[in-house]
Amino acid sequence: MPLYDITYEPHAKTTRVPEGTSLFSGAHWIGLPIESSCGGRGTCGKCKVKIEGEAEVTDADHRELQQSEIDEGWRLSCKQLVSRDTVCFVPELMRKPKAATMGLHRMVVLEPNVVRVNLKLDEPTIEVPRDDMERLREALHTEGYGLDPDDVETLRMVPPRIADRTEVVAIMCGEHLIDIEPTDAPDLAYGVAIDLGTTTVVATVMDLGTGMAVGVASGLNRQAQFGGDVISRIAHSMKGAGELEELRSTGVATVQTILDEAIAEAGVDHDHVYEIVLVGNSTMLHLLMGIDAKQIAVSPFSPVWREALDLRAADVGLRIHPRGRLAFLPALGAYVGADIVAGLVATGIAREPRCRLFIDVGTNGEIALGTGERTVATAAPAGPAFEGAQLKCGMRAADGAIEQVILGETIELKVIGDIEPVGLCGSGLIDAVAQLRLAGLLNAGGRMLSREAAEAAGHPLADHIINVEDALAFRLHGDIYLSQRDIRELQFAKAAVATGIRSLMEEADVKAEDLEEVLLAGSFGSYINPESAVIIGVVPSVNIDRIVAAGNAAGEGAKMTLLSFRERQIANELPTRVEYLELSAVPGFNDNFVTATMFPELEDIPFVAERMKHRTG
Amino acid sequence: MPLYDITYEPHAKTTRVPEGTSLFSGAHWIGLPIESSCGGRGTCGKCKVKIEGEAEVTDADHRELQQSEIDEGWRLSCKQLVSRDTVCFVPELMRKPKAATMGLHRMVVLEPNVVRVNLKLDEPTIEVPRDDMERLREALHTEGYGLDPDDVETLRMVPPRIADRTEVVAIMCGEHLIDIEPTDAPDLAYGVAIDLGTTTVVATVMDLGTGMAVGVASGLNRQAQFGGDVISRIAHSMKGAGELEELRSTGVATVQTILDEAIAEAGVDHDHVYEIVLVGNSTMLHLLMGIDAKQIAVSPFSPVWREALDLRAADVGLRIHPRGRLAFLPALGAYVGADIVAGLVATGIAREPRCRLFIDVGTNGEIALGTGERTVATAAPAGPAFEGAQLKCGMRAADGAIEQVILGETIELKVIGDIEPVGLCGSGLIDAVAQLRLAGLLNAGGRMLSREAAEAAGHPLADHIINVEDALAFRLHGDIYLSQRDIRELQFAKAAVATGIRSLMEEADVKAEDLEEVLLAGSFGSYINPESAVIIGVVPSVNIDRIVAAGNAAGEGAKMTLLSFRERQIANELPTRVEYLELSAVPGFNDNFVTATMFPELEDIPFVAERMKHRTG
Repeated sequence: MPLYDITYEPHAKTTRVPEGTSLFSGAHWIGLPIESSCGGRGTCGKCKVKIEGEAEVTDADHRELQQSEIDEGWRLSCKQLVSRDTVCFVPELMRKPKAATMGLHRMVVLEPNVVRVNLKLDEPTIEVPRDDMERLREALHTEGYGLDPDDVETLRMVPPRIADRTEVVAIMCGEHLIDIEPTDAPDLAYGVAIDLGTTTVVATVMDLGTGMAVGVASGLNRQAQFGGDVISRIAHSMKGAGELEELRSTGVATVQTILDEAIAEAGVDHDHVYEIVLVGNSTMLHLLMGIDAKQIAVSPFSPVWREALDLRAADVGLRIHPRGRLAFLPALGAYVGADIVAGLVATGIAREPRCRLFIDVGTNGEIALGTGERTVATAAPAGPAFEGAQLKCGMRAADGAIEQVILGETIELKVIGDIEPVGLCGSGLIDAVAQLRLAGLLNAGGRMLSREAAEAAGHPLADHIINVEDALAFRLHGDIYLSQRDIRELQFAKAAVATGIRSLMEEADVKAEDLEEVLLAGSFGSYINPESAVIIGVVPSVNIDRIVAAGNAAGEGAKMTLLSFRERQIANELPTRVEYLELSAVPGFNDNFVTATMFPELEDIPFVAERMKHRTG
Repeated sequence: MPLYDITYEPHAKTTRVPEGTSLFSGAHWIGLPIESSCGGRGTCGKCKVKIEGEAEVTDADHRELQQSEIDEGWRLSCKQLVSRDTVCFVPELMRKPKAATMGLHRMVVLEPNVVRVNLKLDEPTIEVPRDDMERLREALHTEGYGLDPDDVETLRMVPPRIADRTEVVAIMCGEHLIDIEPTDAPDLAYGVAIDLGTTTVVATVMDLGTGMAVGVASGLNRQAQFGGDVISRIAHSMKGAGELEELRSTGVATVQTILDEAIAEAGVDHDHVYEIVLVGNSTMLHLLMGIDAKQIAVSPFSPVWREALDLRAADVGLRIHPRGRLAFLPALGAYVGADIVAGLVATGIAREPRCRLFIDVGTNGEIALGTGERTVATAAPAGPAFEGAQLKCGMRAADGAIEQVILGETIELKVIGDIEPVGLCGSGLIDAVAQLRLAGLLNAGGRMLSREAAEAAGHPLADHIINVEDALAFRLHGDIYLSQRDIRELQFAKAAVATGIRSLMEEADVKAEDLEEVLLAGSFGSYINPESAVIIGVVPSVNIDRIVAAGNAAGEGAKMTLLSFRERQIANELPTRVEYLELSAVPGFNDNFVTATMFPELEDIPFVAERMKHRTG
C-alpha cells in the first residue's frame, strides 16, 4: 500500500500514513488532537482543516460546511482520505481538552467513547403525530448520532423514559444508545479497563468524566485449574462442549468477581458503568466467550476472529449497566493478541519516528519492532522457562523466590519477601545463568564447567558445582540448584525469543545499533536485570540505558482506549498498520533457532567487553 | 418532494416516483422484474439497465461494470437514483423467474428474502493464517453479502460449521447470516406469514423454494380475555407492568401455538423455518413485544415506532430456527398499521394508475385512497357496531347469526349455519337497515316509522314494528329485533367511516364518479352486501360492480412480502409514499361527522333511483 506524508500546520508535525487514512485519524497517530465531538463520523462538523492545493469535496463537507469555507479549502478532516502527500492547517482547539500522561509517556486526550448527550425532543402534535423513535432519532441526529431501530429492548426502554419530556440526556457508547436519563440525573459515567491475563486478571474502574482511576481489583484467573498456560487450556476445551463451557463460565465468573470488587472499591453503581475495554491474549478472549479455540493450537494457527469487537457486555455474561458495552481490541495473530495491541498503543510503537523494539515475554514471547516507517510483529513459543515453572527448583515470582543472583567470591541472592529462599523464579534464573557466564563457569554452548576444572582453575565457587542425577548443577543456596537441564530449557526459551527478534530485525533491515529503545513489558520486564538479558542473549546487544521496563503496557493500553476514542481508533487500525510475521513460516527459521540457542560471546557484548578490558587492563 | 417519470423500455411501462427512488425500486412498483440476486444492494452487478442521456457513474458501477459498458450508458439500476424524468432500457431476464398471482391479481416474482448461498472458503495457510471470520467474510463478499462481526453467537456458531470445509452453504436472511450448512444438506427453506388480528390469528407456512403454502393454522387471539378491542387491551396494559407482561406473554403464546400447528401441518422442522413476516395493527405489535402502547390511545395518537423492523424472532420469544428473523412491516399511523400496509401491497393501491378506494372495517375503519398520483390514508373510529357486538340482539358472525336480510311482503333471512337464528351480525345489521330504508320504514335521519303510520300506509311489515323499553324496534324473527338505538349506533359507526372517506376524497380531489374500484377488505368486505353498504352510505355511491371484496388482504400482503424481497421493499417504502391524514385534525371534522350520520336520500343513489323509476314507471 502506498504511504503518504501528512503535515499538520502550524505545528509542523508530519506523519506517514497508508493511502486512504483520514487526515483526522492521521493526527491521532502523532497525538495531535483535532476538534471533534462525533468521533470522526462526519456529523459534528467540528474537525475542519484547511488543505493546501486541490481536495475532494465530500457529501459531509457539503452538509456541514459553508460553500465559502469549501472554496477556501476547508474540509472535514475525518472524511478527507489521503491519496497524496498533504499539508493542512489545523485550527486551534476551541476548548482546552483534558489530557493526561498515560502508558509510556503518552499524552492522552480525555474523550471517552461513552458520552452523555443532551437532547431536545420535539413534541408530537395532532398534525404531525411523530412516534417516539422518530422524535428520539431526530434529536440524536441533530447531535450527530444515529439510532438502530431493530432492537426490541430499545423499543421497550424508550417510551417510559421520554414520556412527557422535551429534554433528556442520552448515554451513548459509540453508536449505541445505552440509556436515557432525565436532565437532573447525576452526571456520572464510568468505564472499566480489564486486563484478562492467563494467570492474573486486573480490573480498573475509570471515571470517564475526570479520567481518574477510582477503583482497582485483581485476582488469579480461576481457569488455571484447567491448565496453567494457553495450550493446556485449549487442550481442556477440546475434550468436549462441557469443558469449553466450563472454561467459559469460570472465566466469566473470574472477571465478574474482580469487576464487582473494583466497582465496589470505587463506590459506584453498576448501572453507571457503561463500557468495558477488555484486553487479553486471543485464547483468553475465545474462552471467555465460549468460542472454539482449537485452531489457535494447531498449524496454521488461525483464530476464529482477530478484528475489534463491540458487543453487549450482557451477551458475554458480564454485568455492568444492563445495556452496557464490551469492547475487545483487535488481535494481530493467533499469538499476538489484543493485549499486545494495547501494549503498542501504550508505548506508541508503530506511531513514533524512532526505532524501537517491544518485547513481552511469558510462555510466549510477543515481539514488535517499529522503525517509524514500518512496524512488524511476531510471536515466539518460549515455553514456561521464563516464568520459573518446570525448572528443577523453579517457582513463580512469589515470596521466597530468588529474583536476583550475583556471583562474586561468594553468592549474593535477593529473595522476594526477604525470607529464606524457596526456589528460583524467571528473573533469578536469567541472572544466575548470566552470572555463570560472567564467572566463566558456563560456556557459550551452555555447558557448565566441571567441578574438577573449576577447582583446577581455582574458582572461588567451584564447590557449588555439584552432581544431581548424573548431570552437573550449580547449587545456589541450601538444596536450591540450577541444573544443566534448566540451562538447556532457558536456552530453548531465549532462542525462540531471540529468533523472533532477529527475524523482525532482518525483515525491517534493522541492526542492534539502530535500536533506540528496547521495551520490556509485563512483570518479566519489570524484574529482569537488563544486563543479564543481554548477556544471555534474549535481548539484542544494546547499551543498557536503552533497555526500559514498560510496566503493564496491556493494562495501560486498555485504560487509554477506554478514555479516548482517538486511542481506540488507533488500536482498531493497528492490524492494518502492523505486519504480522508467522515465525514458523520464515525461511531458515530452524537454523536460526539452533544458532540462537548459543549464548553470545562475552567479548561481543560491548559493555561486558569494556569491563573485561578494564579488569585485565 | 418532486416526482419524476421513469419509462422502462422495451416494455414502454412508465411510473411516477419521488426524487431519489432507484430505477430498480421504481420497476418493483409496476411489477416489472429487473435481474438481481443481491436484492438491490449494489453487489451482484446483475441489475444493469441502459440509460438514455447523461447518468451519474456510481462507485458500484465502477466496481461491477466494464468501462465500455459505462461508456455505452449501462448503470446498476439499484444505485441509480432518479433526479429527472428518465428513460432506460431493461435487458430481458436471464432466467424465467418463478412467479405467481397473489393478493388481488398481482404477479409476484418468487425471490424471497431468505436465500441459500453457496460459498467457497479459502483455506488458511501458514503464510496467510486467515481467521475463520475473515474467510467467511471474504466468501460472503464474493457473493455480495456482508458479515456483522459484533455478535457473540455468530462467533460461537461459525468455527465448528466451517472447520475443514472449503465449500458450505450460508443461509442468509437479508443481510443476516442465519446458519451455515454442509453442501449436502437438504435444500429446504421455509418462512411463515402471520396475520395477528385483534380477534383471529392466522399463520401460513410457505415453501420459499416453490412459493407454495404448505401449512396453515388459525385460532383466536387469547389476549381477548383482557379486552375485546384494542382500546380495552391498551387500558388493561396501563394497569401496570404485570398487565403489560400478561398481554405480551399471552400474545406470544397465542402466536407460537398457531405457528407450531402450521409448522406441524406442513410437516417441516422448526430449524428450517428461517423467517416470519408478521402483520397486525400497531397495538397488536406493541403488545406482542411488551411495549407501552398507551400513547396509541390518547391524543395525539403517536405509537412508539412506525418503521419496518427486522428482529431476531427469539428476541420476541418466537421459536423458529434459533437465529431466524422476524420482520414487521411498517405502519402509517397509530391506527393504520402494518396490516393495512400489507393490504396496500396485496391490492396494489399506491402503485396502479387507477383511482381506487380501500376500506378495511373493524372496530376501526382503515381507509386508503390511491389516484395513481397520490395515495392518502386515514383511520376512522367506527366502534363495535359493524362487528355486531353491543347491539341489543347482536352477535359476532358465527353460527346462528343473521347475515342477510331481505324485506318484501315478508321477511327473508339468511342465517350462518342454516340454523334457527340467534342474533344479528354486522352484515345482517347493515342489510336490515338498508332494507328498512328501501321499505320506507326508516327516514334519512334514522327515525323508524311508527307502527300506526306504517299500518295507516298499509305497509305489509307494519306489525313487525314493536315497542321495546319505550323505544321503537323492528322485529326480525322471534325475539330478535333491531332497536332504534342499534340504528343510532350504526349511524355513528358509518358516519365515522364515511367522514374518513370524504376527507380523503376531498384531500385528493376525487369525486365518487372518479372511483374505478372500491375494495372492501377483511370479513366485513366478504360478507357485506355492496348494495346495502351504498344505501346506508358507508361506501360512496358508485356502481355496484365497482365494489369488490378484497379478502384477507393483510394476510396476502404478508405472504407476498415473505416470498418477494421486491414486495418487501415496496411495503417498507410505503410510509414515504402514502400521506397519512389524522382525521381529528381535519378542519370541519365534527360538522362533517354530524352530517354523515344521515343516510343518503334514496333518489340520490343512481341504482336505487333507477329501480324506483322502473317500479313507479
